[in-house]
Amino acid sequence: MKTRAAVAWEANKPLTIETIEIGGPKAGEVLVENKATGICHTDAYTLSGLDSEGKFPAVLGHEGAGIVREVGPGVTSVKVGDHVIPLYTPECRQCKSCLSQRTNLCTAIRATQGQGLMPDGTSRFSCDGGEIFHYMGCSTFSNFTVLPEIAVAKVREDAPFDKICYIGCGVTTGIGAVVYTAKVWPGANVVVFGLGGIGLNVIQGARMVGADKIIGVDLNPAKAEMAKKFGMTDFVNPDAVGRDKVVQAIVDLTGGGADFSFECIGNVHTMRQALECCHRGWGTSIIIGVAPSGTEIATRPFQLVTGRNWRGSAFGGARGRTDVPKIVDWYMEGKINIDDLITHTMPLEDINQGFDLMHEGKSIRSVVIY
Amino acid sequence: MKTRAAVAWEANKPLTIETIEIGGPKAGEVLVENKATGICHTDAYTLSGLDSEGKFPAVLGHEGAGIVREVGPGVTSVKVGDHVIPLYTPECRQCKSCLSQRTNLCTAIRATQGQGLMPDGTSRFSCDGGEIFHYMGCSTFSNFTVLPEIAVAKVREDAPFDKICYIGCGVTTGIGAVVYTAKVWPGANVVVFGLGGIGLNVIQGARMVGADKIIGVDLNPAKAEMAKKFGMTDFVNPDAVGRDKVVQAIVDLTGGGADFSFECIGNVHTMRQALECCHRGWGTSIIIGVAPSGTEIATRPFQLVTGRNWRGSAFGGARGRTDVPKIVDWYMEGKINIDDLITHTMPLEDINQGFDLMHEGKSIRSVVIY
Repeated sequence: MKTRAAVAWEANKPLTIETIEIGGPKAGEVLVENKATGICHTDAYTLSGLDSEGKFPAVLGHEGAGIVREVGPGVTSVKVGDHVIPLYTPECRQCKSCLSQRTNLCTAIRATQGQGLMPDGTSRFSCDGGEIFHYMGCSTFSNFTVLPEIAVAKVREDAPFDKICYIGCGVTTGIGAVVYTAKVWPGANVVVFGLGGIGLNVIQGARMVGADKIIGVDLNPAKAEMAKKFGMTDFVNPDAVGRDKVVQAIVDLTGGGADFSFECIGNVHTMRQALECCHRGWGTSIIIGVAPSGTEIATRPFQLVTGRNWRGSAFGGARGRTDVPKIVDWYMEGKINIDDLITHTMPLEDINQGFDLMHEGKSIRSVVIY
Repeated sequence: MKTRAAVAWEANKPLTIETIEIGGPKAGEVLVENKATGICHTDAYTLSGLDSEGKFPAVLGHEGAGIVREVGPGVTSVKVGDHVIPLYTPECRQCKSCLSQRTNLCTAIRATQGQGLMPDGTSRFSCDGGEIFHYMGCSTFSNFTVLPEIAVAKVREDAPFDKICYIGCGVTTGIGAVVYTAKVWPGANVVVFGLGGIGLNVIQGARMVGADKIIGVDLNPAKAEMAKKFGMTDFVNPDAVGRDKVVQAIVDLTGGGADFSFECIGNVHTMRQALECCHRGWGTSIIIGVAPSGTEIATRPFQLVTGRNWRGSAFGGARGRTDVPKIVDWYMEGKINIDDLITHTMPLEDINQGFDLMHEGKSIRSVVIY
C-alpha cells in the first residue's frame, strides 16, 4: 500500500514529503496508522549526520501514537482498532534482559533495529523501487508504519493522540527516570540539570512522587517560570552563583547534598557536577542527557567510595508495554501535565518548521498531527 | 596511666616502641586493652606521608581487638570485660547518616577523628609531655587505647583476638562490600580486580552468598592458587589475554558481562575496566581500592545510560556495632576463613618487620599480638 511520509534522504537536508510504498505486516508485526508524532532532539541528532547508527534514506520519528490497522500472522497481544504507542525500546518479555527483571533494555530486536531494518532483516519502506530505512524501530514520520507487536504499547482509547504521543519518548524518559530508574522517595531532595522538555518531565515526576525540594539548574533564567509551574521549588543559575560554585550552592540549599540528581543536558561537565552535588553516603546521580560522541565523564573515585552512586537511564527505565500505558493513565487522571509542554502543532507538510523551532529554542515540543 | 605503643614520630621513619601516657576515658568513652592488631596498607599509606590527613607524631593502627578495661561516665552499651573490636567507622545511631538507614558512614565524630583527636578535641596520648595524635579514631598500635563507646563493636568472648582483629578492617571491607554494599545475589557472576587481602575477602564473601562464577583478575598468576582456595572459579591474567582485552575476556567468560565487579587495587584504569566489564542493563561496579591522590576515573556516559552502575564501598558498607559482631559469628561458624589470610604474627617490638613484609608482598596480613 501507499503512505505519506517525511523522508530524510541525506544528512543535514530538510525532509521531503513523499508518497511511499509500505509493505504489510509479516508474522508478529502490526500495521499502525500514526495519528500524531512528536519531533525530538534525537531525530535532529540523526538528521545532523552525527549519529553513527544513522542510515539514509530513512523515515525518522520515534514519538508517535496511532491505531492498529492490520495485524500479521500470530499476533496475539493487540488487534485491529487498538490504540497504541510505538516503542523504540520494545519489551519481548522473553530475552535475558527482560527476564532479568532488572532492566528495561530489551535486546530481542536490537541488532536489526540498529540497522534500520525490521527483525527479519528487511525494510517495509520503499520509494520508486529504492529501499528506505526504518528508524529506531518506529518511523513515526509516516502516516502508516509497521512495527513488531513487542514494540507497541496498547493504551486506553479515550486518550488524545496529539498529547500522548509525547509519552512515546520525552515524557517517559523524564518521569520514568524518577519513578523507575531512581525510585525517588517522598521527601527526597531532587536536583535537575537542564530545564528543557526532559528536565520539566523529571520535575513533574519528582513532584508526583512527593519530593521535597526540587531544584532546577539552568543557564537561562527565562526557563525558571515554566519549571516552577511543573514543581520546581528552587532555581540555581550557574552564572549567578558562579559556574564553579554550583555544587556548593546545591549542597547548601539541600543541607548536605541532593538525594537524587538528574542530568538532562548531555554535557559531561554538568554530569560531574550532578554527581558531586549528591549527598555523601547515598546520593544518586542519573545521567539522562546524551553527550557528544567521544566525550567522557570523570570524577575522583573518592566521590563514589564515600557513597555516591553514578547511574544512567534510557527511556526512563520504563518497560514499554507494561509501564507506558500506566503513564497514559497518569496523564488522563491529571497527575501529570503534558498539554503545556506541547507548544506547537502542525501538519506533516510543515514538519521542517518543527525542527527549526526546536533548533531556535522556541518550542518545548512540536507535534505533527496527521 | 602508662601503655606500651609503637609511635610514628614522622613520615617515612620506622615506628619506635615507647612507653607513653594515656588518659583515662571521659564521658561516653572506654579504655580498651588491645590484644591484637593487624597491619594494613592504610597504616603504611599514612606513614608514607602521602595521606593529607596524616598527622605526626601519632599512634597508628586501626585493625584491633581487645577487652574493655574501664568505662567513662554515661557509658551504657558496653561494660568492663566486654570483648570489642575498635571501629574507625563508628555507629552513633543518631546522626543524619545513621538515621537515613542508607549508609554506614556515621558522621558523629568525623571532624575530630580526622584531626587525630577524641570527640572533645583533645588527645589522650602524650610522651614526655608532648601530645601524640590518635589515628582513625582507633590507634591500635598501642596496648591500651581510648575510644568513644560508639566506636567499639561488642563481640562474642570465645572468638580469638589474633584472628578477629582482621575483621576490624580488611575482612569487613571485602565481605561487607559483597553483602552490604552490592547485595550480591545467589547465582550472580562476580569479578574481582586484585587478589590481595581485600580481593580474597571479596571472593569468599561472594562464595558465601552463593555467587556462580567468581572471576579473579591479577597480573600475578602466583596469586591464583590462594584465590581458588577462597572460591575463585576463573582467573584472568591481563598479560595473558592482553591488557586492553580484559573487558572482552570477562564479557566472554560471563556470557555478556559481570553482574558485579569489585576493584580492590586502587588503580583508576582498572576501575574503568571493572565498570565496563559489567553487564549492560544492570551490572554494578564497586570501587573499594584507594586511588592515588589527585587521580580520576573516567568512562563514556553511554556505559551508565545503558544500565551500568558505578558505586563505591567504605568499610564494606557495614554498620560497625550492628554488622561487625555478625561477621565475627560467621567466622566462628566456619562460614568464612580468616586463619589462612593471617600469614604472619609478631610481638609489638617487631612491628616494623610487619610493614616490611607487606611492602615486599610477602604477607597477606601480619598481626601484632600483645
